[in-house]
Amino acid sequence: MTRIDSYLLTLSCLDRPGIVAAISSYIASFGGNILEAQQFDDAETGRFFMRVEFALQDSARYPDVRRGFDALAEQFAITWRMRPRAERQRTLILVSKFDHCLVDLLYRLRIGELEMDVVGIVSNHPRQALMTPLIDDVPFHYLPVTPDTRNEQEARIKALIEETGAELIILARYMQILSDALAAYLSGRCINIHHSFLPGFKGAKPYHQAHARGVKMIGATAHYVTSDLDEGPIIAQDVEGITHADRPDALIIKGRDIERRVLAKAVQLHLEDRVLLNGAKTVVFRD
Amino acid sequence: MTRIDSYLLTLSCLDRPGIVAAISSYIASFGGNILEAQQFDDAETGRFFMRVEFALQDSARYPDVRRGFDALAEQFAITWRMRPRAERQRTLILVSKFDHCLVDLLYRLRIGELEMDVVGIVSNHPRQALMTPLIDDVPFHYLPVTPDTRNEQEARIKALIEETGAELIILARYMQILSDALAAYLSGRCINIHHSFLPGFKGAKPYHQAHARGVKMIGATAHYVTSDLDEGPIIAQDVEGITHADRPDALIIKGRDIERRVLAKAVQLHLEDRVLLNGAKTVVFRD
Amino acid sequence: MTRIDSYLLTLSCLDRPGIVAAISSYIASFGGNILEAQQFDDAETGRFFMRVEFALQDSARYPDVRRGFDALAEQFAITWRMRPRAERQRTLILVSKFDHCLVDLLYRLRIGELEMDVVGIVSNHPRQALMTPLIDDVPFHYLPVTPDTRNEQEARIKALIEETGAELIILARYMQILSDALAAYLSGRCINIHHSFLPGFKGAKPYHQAHARGVKMIGATAHYVTSDLDEGPIIAQDVEGITHADRPDALIIKGRDIERRVLAKAVQLHLEDRVLLNGAKTVVFRD
Amino acid sequence: MTRIDSYLLTLSCLDRPGIVAAISSYIASFGGNILEAQQFDDAETGRFFMRVEFALQDSARYPDVRRGFDALAEQFAITWRMRPRAERQRTLILVSKFDHCLVDLLYRLRIGELEMDVVGIVSNHPRQALMTPLIDDVPFHYLPVTPDTRNEQEARIKALIEETGAELIILARYMQILSDALAAYLSGRCINIHHSFLPGFKGAKPYHQAHARGVKMIGATAHYVTSDLDEGPIIAQDVEGITHADRPDALIIKGRDIERRVLAKAVQLHLEDRVLLNGAKTVVFRD
Repeated sequence: MTRIDSYLLTLSCLDRPGIVAAISSYIASFGGNILEAQQFDDAETGRFFMRVEFALQDSARYPDVRRGFDALAEQFAITWRMRPRAERQRTLILVSKFDHCLVDLLYRLRIGELEMDVVGIVSNHPRQALMTPLIDDVPFHYLPVTPDTRNEQEARIKALIEETGAELIILARYMQILSDALAAYLSGRCINIHHSFLPGFKGAKPYHQAHARGVKMIGATAHYVTSDLDEGPIIAQDVEGITHADRPDALIIKGRDIERRVLAKAVQLHLEDRVLLNGAKTVVFRD
Repeated sequence: MTRIDSYLLTLSCLDRPGIVAAISSYIASFGGNILEAQQFDDAETGRFFMRVEFALQDSARYPDVRRGFDALAEQFAITWRMRPRAERQRTLILVSKFDHCLVDLLYRLRIGELEMDVVGIVSNHPRQALMTPLIDDVPFHYLPVTPDTRNEQEARIKALIEETGAELIILARYMQILSDALAAYLSGRCINIHHSFLPGFKGAKPYHQAHARGVKMIGATAHYVTSDLDEGPIIAQDVEGITHADRPDALIIKGRDIERRVLAKAVQLHLEDRVLLNGAKTVVFRD
Repeated sequence: MTRIDSYLLTLSCLDRPGIVAAISSYIASFGGNILEAQQFDDAETGRFFMRVEFALQDSARYPDVRRGFDALAEQFAITWRMRPRAERQRTLILVSKFDHCLVDLLYRLRIGELEMDVVGIVSNHPRQALMTPLIDDVPFHYLPVTPDTRNEQEARIKALIEETGAELIILARYMQILSDALAAYLSGRCINIHHSFLPGFKGAKPYHQAHARGVKMIGATAHYVTSDLDEGPIIAQDVEGITHADRPDALIIKGRDIERRVLAKAVQLHLEDRVLLNGAKTVVFRD
Repeated sequence: MTRIDSYLLTLSCLDRPGIVAAISSYIASFGGNILEAQQFDDAETGRFFMRVEFALQDSARYPDVRRGFDALAEQFAITWRMRPRAERQRTLILVSKFDHCLVDLLYRLRIGELEMDVVGIVSNHPRQALMTPLIDDVPFHYLPVTPDTRNEQEARIKALIEETGAELIILARYMQILSDALAAYLSGRCINIHHSFLPGFKGAKPYHQAHARGVKMIGATAHYVTSDLDEGPIIAQDVEGITHADRPDALIIKGRDIERRVLAKAVQLHLEDRVLLNGAKTVVFRD
């Protein structure tokens, strides 16, 4: 999947004629070849979003490409990000007691499906509460929390993020509600898996809610964390059919499968810079 | 699909040992052969649900089978229904201006997919507002309604149901809210298609709500009508993936496809006596 | 869905640096604004595919945009097509006895989902064999065929295509095998619905084959017609789950639903110039 | 999910009136309560299939229920199997180099989703070739094989099955073709995951085949092993959509997800005695 010496450029700005031409001409002026490009004009907000993957014949020119883009960005008031595709994002995973998502992420990492560096695992439960083998030598941080110690615990999480340089934070069934301050600090780089098809069943025990309501499908939602727990910008969702005979414990089992594949999908999309924030929504450039 | 001279028995009662034996022995005592049988024990309520399709070598014995079941029903306090499978239910369809569900039902009727007799179509819009060809010679009743005339209009609908002997009433995108009285009168025999994946987006304009929230899937829900418009027992649901690029009008188009197939599925399940009410939920015995 | 005064450009050529810049700069030089753009580099063949939808502030300049593109096309050896998006393609539908796909297409046309002009319907069965109401005043051509008269019948079909100027030909369950000559004549503009998930069950009675094999899912495939009936480039596919209890007639009913939605999807993609031929395969730029 | 002291009875015989009554009366005569029952009449073969889960108020009577069933079985020429639901099947897993299915099964085992006892893992690759942590203390047997040593290797596998008393054998991406003799020996109790949606792409490298053909969906198939590698009775299948941009390596990644969930589903259905063989097909009584 990885292409040697390719680069990812993502950007957004107000839409106006000539943007695509300006960007593609800029890349071409360095002998760059556009391998993949996607764009979206949000007719409601007039905002333009783009993702470009390009290759350079001479990778030594990349620093110039990057540096020179500032002038173009200024001209069109572009918010942008450019990086070598092969660069692996430093990632911190938070988990509570249910570790199916953690195990799934670690396995996908191991077989090369997810290209990231896991710099640490944080749990409010001790390591022995989790299925340890796959954690292996990833630094594990046991940070218990009570209502009274949340501020201190979050300060330690924040310190860990800064020490490790974590760019992406994954809440892999981390069952603690983040403070508004931490949520704001993590804005746009913290992915949560909500074990429900939002906005179907918000709040706790969604599978029990689904059972009580008698719905015929359940699902899961991966979204960026905001201070409003169940309202962050949605990245990916999926569902499965259920029947009257599925009791809540059966729904939980089915739910686990959906949760882990939806979270893995969202993480992969994020790692490939395919998700751009658009206010309370996302633009997702699927491959 | 139709089996000649087969009969459908659906029932529910409090669960206790020996029920299945009692029912199957009763059928066997008339030389009946069970073609299909499904059951469900609701562990939460202790209630037992069953659907049996059986054939008789001598169909002349059916009246005796039916009459004699009363004694068994009394013994186990069974709520039941028995009928020849080939008997077609008299059906009344209500529709407003969007006729994609109506057209779909009528076409499926015509090619033999839905075994029912449509005894009439009611609309609060005149016939020329609908795509008329498929209505053909089905009696069409234009019953306009305003907030002030709802009682009178509903009285006319009720009279129509009684005159035609309609057993099933389908709200095929009928955009009027029924009074509590009419909803209660239609309890368990009126199917609505809610153009949303409940309980995701209740109320009006669900596709606009879905777009505003940025969800990645939309769906539709077929349910029995109760006085609480969006809360009736759910029969069938389905969803489809959408993207950031789908504007509300695109969602409406995708939604139409989901709506018509979910409503058709629910109607078919109902016509084959596969849906049993279980409080605010349903038991659906899929084939 | 329709944007006033927008234009569709689709193209393919050998990939090389600067193509995107050249095309987007060309459009920008006329004051054009790119509304949607998608591209694909086929790493195996080195071929580049692109679809661009652009708007012009001054639509009077469109003839110049179109005319001037020749020079660019020559420079990069581009195969291309440009047209106003609002231009409706002239379409001829061929059908045999099963009319569910025809009815579905005509209904979608009527409610504005498919933007095409149906210039005629051809059937090897008389009009009364079909469910006539929806055909309405669309010219209907009864062209019966026997093994001995195939050449003559196909000559009449070809004449019809030329007389009506039909650009798209849809085989909506047209159960005759086209001659190699006619298939070649229709290359790239004739869509067939194969009532099976290819390459699962080729040939006749695929649902009976699926039942005999005991598979757990059935599907349908829409593809461009080539001289090899079951091997044309695939545009769209879909499947549904089935069970051991589904007899072939039940599979046929389920199949009808899949067939009509897969064919409608493929036709819509084609009408929006989203399908580009890539040898024996397609590039499909979904919105 | 587990119900204490419940029992599973599965059976098949020629269909005739009174079977259900005879079986349910037999169970009732021991004070048994039927918790779940499903049946299927194969109209083509006249064969009747049934699965019954029943509870006993006095579990001490189970040996009598089991012993006494012989007489009934003889009367109706019934092939049957009865066992306590809580009894865990002894299972042997065979794997080659790709261990995603193995890891998935072991994780589901650990969290209680799959109720089986894994008595051993066999691989033609050494343990260090696999992702070892999850294997933990499950006996691991490295049984390398070459074309010349297949007989000896299979003899060792067979010996292992007999020593461990393995009832279920799972080929979790075991890439060796079994001899006809071993396939026959394992008849009805050996589940394979075929990394393709059968009968779409048989044989080797199905994802490359799918890419070359340009299909728009890929899938996986779990089936019982027979001497004809790709033709065994199908238990479960699933698919996912793909696009022109998915290269074979991307298909392999998507395929892994489908493979592991389809295999896990098939194993779970088998462990709950929900799969009955019906010639070259299966009857699958989903819950």
